[in-house]
Amino acid sequence: MVKSVVNPWEVTGEVNYDKLIRDFGVKRIDKDLLNRIKSITGEIHPMLRREFFFAHRDFEPILDQYEKGNKFFIYTGCGPSGPLHLGHLGTWMFTKWLQDKFDVEVWFQFTDDEKFLFKQKSYEEIQKWTKENMLDVIALGFNPKKTHFIVDTWHANLLYPEAIKFAKKITFSTVKAAFGFTNDRNIGEIFYTSMQAVPAILPSVLAGKMIPCLIPLGIDQDPHFRVARDVYPKLGYPKPAILHGKLLPPLKGMEGKMSSSEETGAILTTDDAATVKNKINKYAFSGGQKTTEEHRKKGGNTDVDVSFQYLKIIFEPDDKKLAEIKRKYESGEMLTGELKAYLIEKINAFLKEHQKKREEAKGKVEEFLFSR
Amino acid sequence: MVKSVVNPWEVTGEVNYDKLIRDFGVKRIDKDLLNRIKSITGEIHPMLRREFFFAHRDFEPILDQYEKGNKFFIYTGCGPSGPLHLGHLGTWMFTKWLQDKFDVEVWFQFTDDEKFLFKQKSYEEIQKWTKENMLDVIALGFNPKKTHFIVDTWHANLLYPEAIKFAKKITFSTVKAAFGFTNDRNIGEIFYTSMQAVPAILPSVLAGKMIPCLIPLGIDQDPHFRVARDVYPKLGYPKPAILHGKLLPPLKGMEGKMSSSEETGAILTTDDAATVKNKINKYAFSGGQKTTEEHRKKGGNTDVDVSFQYLKIIFEPDDKKLAEIKRKYESGEMLTGELKAYLIEKINAFLKEHQKKREEAKGKVEEFLFSR
Repeated sequence: MVKSVVNPWEVTGEVNYDKLIRDFGVKRIDKDLLNRIKSITGEIHPMLRREFFFAHRDFEPILDQYEKGNKFFIYTGCGPSGPLHLGHLGTWMFTKWLQDKFDVEVWFQFTDDEKFLFKQKSYEEIQKWTKENMLDVIALGFNPKKTHFIVDTWHANLLYPEAIKFAKKITFSTVKAAFGFTNDRNIGEIFYTSMQAVPAILPSVLAGKMIPCLIPLGIDQDPHFRVARDVYPKLGYPKPAILHGKLLPPLKGMEGKMSSSEETGAILTTDDAATVKNKINKYAFSGGQKTTEEHRKKGGNTDVDVSFQYLKIIFEPDDKKLAEIKRKYESGEMLTGELKAYLIEKINAFLKEHQKKREEAKGKVEEFLFSR
Repeated sequence: MVKSVVNPWEVTGEVNYDKLIRDFGVKRIDKDLLNRIKSITGEIHPMLRREFFFAHRDFEPILDQYEKGNKFFIYTGCGPSGPLHLGHLGTWMFTKWLQDKFDVEVWFQFTDDEKFLFKQKSYEEIQKWTKENMLDVIALGFNPKKTHFIVDTWHANLLYPEAIKFAKKITFSTVKAAFGFTNDRNIGEIFYTSMQAVPAILPSVLAGKMIPCLIPLGIDQDPHFRVARDVYPKLGYPKPAILHGKLLPPLKGMEGKMSSSEETGAILTTDDAATVKNKINKYAFSGGQKTTEEHRKKGGNTDVDVSFQYLKIIFEPDDKKLAEIKRKYESGEMLTGELKAYLIEKINAFLKEHQKKREEAKGKVEEFLFSR
């Protein structure tokens, strides 16, 4: 097994989530917590009950407050450096569910500065992707009255004055340890984590009163908040709560995470039906056997089958149907081609609708952009 | 002699300006350059002819352009962390002369982020001093139609998007070498130099065309631009020109520079006449002899006499009068008390007028604040 690395800019190897819970010092989402969520939301989102969102920091106090009538807000974000893929959408679909069920505000940060500083891409290209990526977020159906887009360079007047308050309390030694930085890193990369810390307090700053913050994120982003969490109380704010999601695997197998940088690893939100079909059929790692005969006899392995995982994580919310597919595939009754065909149909139905809404989103960006 | 350190945050020991010219790799302002300036301005400012502004980088191309009709703009700044003193005003009086003689715009940066990040002071205190310090700058008589105040946190929307372009091309190794930073420095301090680089291109960015930039500064600020100068061409801009001033010595003697942090070392712009009299009489290092008799016999040393230096640098622009004072003091004809009395009168006459204009400035801040 390849040694696994998990940080905001690199995810390699087969991620051992049990180990991350220990290494990062986060808590598993247990049955009691799920029941508590259900008592408010009336249902448990498939990503919760299937342990895709599997860990947290300080979610209980957020629920304590909520039950007393003090609503939290959600802070999540997007690093705009290229086309978006299903890995991005999955986390945000869960975020939208949280918004709907808890009826709360979502502050959505577009970290264009981060992507410019960390990628070999021009400022102009990052700006283009910022605008493109917004369309996908809007298409997911976030409530325009309760969703606020913040772009780091466009809203620097709001973010930078707060960011330096975090920066003053974070040393190079700290970011070196948290992110594995060396002295040849650029000084923007070194500063950046303080910009990502700010949205967790921004609504409180603007409202002039404390509003609890909940951050749903892919667990690879956790190091930013490990660094910043110690600072929030020093600035007079409570530590934000975090819900940690697993990372959608790339087409090629269960190592690393889906990324637009690898052409054959990701289903993009703008892929047409033929492209999706081709990508799944050609690249999606199969847990099936080498021959049909062998598969009929031994059955497939759903744990490593990427198509099954995509159904489990996003595209088959119906537990009964998913259990049936699992049974059929593991028994050999269902072939890999049939499993892939089922997934392709699901993805294409979803993307057809998504792409329609994405077109409609072009006239709605202003509604979502935060302005005072 | 104490080992001398000269960087933007520390000036100690007796500064050897000849050595700085070699160490920093800057050029001395020579007779030819002075004559060239005079051919445009009609006169040579006392700070130039007395070699207080003594060195430069790339000033000739600025004059080449000017003679072709392409005006430069001036970029200078103020780090607002406390009350201002005569050391600050001296440099800006020269800057105002440049504005008047060349009829050019001045972009004045208030680096509130820097002072917050580098000093043990609260954000609120730095904001207070930012507003206070503006009054002194306005009182000096800068042309409100051609002078633009930029405050780093207030104008972050303009500065931060450009700053990250510099930051991307500056590594921690570079700032470590230039500023002597260690790993325990905060990540805001590390990033900061990229914010100071921006105003040298900002008018060009806003105008959509190249405008040459001239930066008059105390030579302790030069390391910022040594770091940034290599970056300007990489971003498609010419390197800014720099005029380097010496540092006004503190009251206590010719080591270090005047600083508001040391209570007994500085004459503040808000000091009343009695305070000035007391500070000069009590603290101004004297080049005179221990007794009146000895002084009459041996005379005083104007090279180390702080009162004489203040006259030379700021308060006695008349060369003949200054020469007369020098002759009298060195011959023993003039006593230290008489020299100090002459200086006190000059400073108090200046401050009386300055403080009046400083009061009037309170209604003018908006005129000077840059807005699009």
